[in-house]
Amino acid sequence: MKSIEWVDGKVRLIDQTKLPEELVYLEISDHLELCEAIKKLKVRGAPAIGIAGAFGVVLGLNKMNDKIFNINNYINKVIDDLRSTRPTARNLFWALDRMYKKICSLSGESMGKVKKESLKEALDIYMEDEEMSRKIGENGVELLKDECSILTHCNTGFLVTAGIGTALGIVYTAVEKGKKVRVYADETRPLLQGARLTAWELEMKGIDVTLICDNTAAFLMKKGMVDCVIVGADRIASNGDTANKVGTYNLAVLAEKHNIPFYVAAPHSTFDFSLKNGDEIPIEERNPEEVYMGFGKRRAPDNINVFNPAFDVTPNNLITAFVTEEKIFYPPYGNWGGLKNY
Amino acid sequence: MKSIEWVDGKVRLIDQTKLPEELVYLEISDHLELCEAIKKLKVRGAPAIGIAGAFGVVLGLNKMNDKIFNINNYINKVIDDLRSTRPTARNLFWALDRMYKKICSLSGESMGKVKKESLKEALDIYMEDEEMSRKIGENGVELLKDECSILTHCNTGFLVTAGIGTALGIVYTAVEKGKKVRVYADETRPLLQGARLTAWELEMKGIDVTLICDNTAAFLMKKGMVDCVIVGADRIASNGDTANKVGTYNLAVLAEKHNIPFYVAAPHSTFDFSLKNGDEIPIEERNPEEVYMGFGKRRAPDNINVFNPAFDVTPNNLITAFVTEEKIFYPPYGNWGGLKNY
Repeated sequence: MKSIEWVDGKVRLIDQTKLPEELVYLEISDHLELCEAIKKLKVRGAPAIGIAGAFGVVLGLNKMNDKIFNINNYINKVIDDLRSTRPTARNLFWALDRMYKKICSLSGESMGKVKKESLKEALDIYMEDEEMSRKIGENGVELLKDECSILTHCNTGFLVTAGIGTALGIVYTAVEKGKKVRVYADETRPLLQGARLTAWELEMKGIDVTLICDNTAAFLMKKGMVDCVIVGADRIASNGDTANKVGTYNLAVLAEKHNIPFYVAAPHSTFDFSLKNGDEIPIEERNPEEVYMGFGKRRAPDNINVFNPAFDVTPNNLITAFVTEEKIFYPPYGNWGGLKNY
Repeated sequence: MKSIEWVDGKVRLIDQTKLPEELVYLEISDHLELCEAIKKLKVRGAPAIGIAGAFGVVLGLNKMNDKIFNINNYINKVIDDLRSTRPTARNLFWALDRMYKKICSLSGESMGKVKKESLKEALDIYMEDEEMSRKIGENGVELLKDECSILTHCNTGFLVTAGIGTALGIVYTAVEKGKKVRVYADETRPLLQGARLTAWELEMKGIDVTLICDNTAAFLMKKGMVDCVIVGADRIASNGDTANKVGTYNLAVLAEKHNIPFYVAAPHSTFDFSLKNGDEIPIEERNPEEVYMGFGKRRAPDNINVFNPAFDVTPNNLITAFVTEEKIFYPPYGNWGGLKNY
């Protein structure tokens, strides 16, 4: 089962907002429709957003025709449309920059060749992503004991990559290698990616999963029920400060208090070496509705304020290690070895 | 507006499960019906459960008639029914014990007198509770700066006492005295007492309230947006370890990390001097449904485990002070002065 794919000139993706009730595939042939799908979290998760961005550029190119007066302007517009969907996840900008560079390198070539080579680039991004998540899984396994309980937040499995996932990719690999893993899944308010998506993925794969409310993680840790925390990331600054789904920083503080290792799993495309630290990461604020009526029924009075940041930033000193496709990085962070060479 | 009252031989209470959509009053004349109302959280909050328990005993007594063979057994049964509704909040057991002692002290008196004196005892509990919350408010005000932002969890206002509340009672008193208070209300999963009840109370009283998801508190604290945390309590052990709505311990850890004072507001009826520490406090586990379909729609797959403890225990060393009707207690905790004399 693939969360996102290129099929017959279209982007085919699982509508993640419909899970777990319904498994609905969308086929999208217009880049603006894809922008809407990204904004509405039909496709979500940093690596998957990156892949969607790359495919979106190809959709835009495929709509080009002789009536378009200024090709450069058109391509810039397509990329800007995609770029403005969501501000935090680095992978989107990384993929769009890579597509843009590719297209620039084809300057002077025929439109047919530009389209063909751009599709190839997007498919490369896709296949590299699949390979990256496989390697993250392989690299991360050594962090887990043969029997262990993992706490995770949001969703980081096959729904968010072309492969097996980032944080959950480590879980899948560990189980494949015969380790006995129990997962506690934060439900992850407001949009319940943990309850709807992580629990769904793990249950489907036959992995022992227990759903908790986000505010219950501290209780579990105090009782000694959690061996480690593993989360994904949306953007990682040069110094290792990490933006991820809101609530991640909360878990990192709790993990520190209870002497529990706190791991971040992410591919190189999540790293933003242009940023010195986490203060520079833009944090998306989303619609208050997600909080006060995320379930089809208003559950708070009218006229109150709601604060709904989608992400928070965990400072590097709370992160025990980063699991990447290259290797595991331990503190002090800053020299990211092979990752910088991509 | 009273959350719970004795009116014409019945218990009249606001059905808290219907808020904020509807303001529905229930009139209950049967103690078993009241037990159901307590179990289903139609009436909730430690002090209010205590009051409900006391009134419940009176409802039971009022149903007594000549056909009851063994009066002692009957009264014990009524009290046991009420006692078995919820295990954590101390105030329930405190109120039931007080009612039982009163009834025992009337041994040999006419049934009419027993009923009359028991009602008087329950109304005393009610009026003392009102007075206690007033005093907690008065005592707590000195902890707040003239302009401050308070983070709170669950609901601790007039819905949970005969008066103005415990933690929110301090907010109400501060505002009355002209302080400028902004409140951040944790929505408080799974049952959203913060979103549904705290936001409703504060909005009705014209107090600046901002709703957040529970997992967003850490973000606010890191940004310096929270001056102090104030919560209520369900049971406090002799050493100050405090059981309160799940997520409270989480906040206490976060407050410690960010050097933010963490206050607990509670009357003497919440203290359980028979318990050495928090390990001895029984923690209620509630129905998994509250987590996976608390909003009328299933939001997690079938067949997964859910862990749904209703409370957690915050160790005494994370609590900056207790605000009681007697005075503010600071560490080291253990000598509770006047509180022990009730």
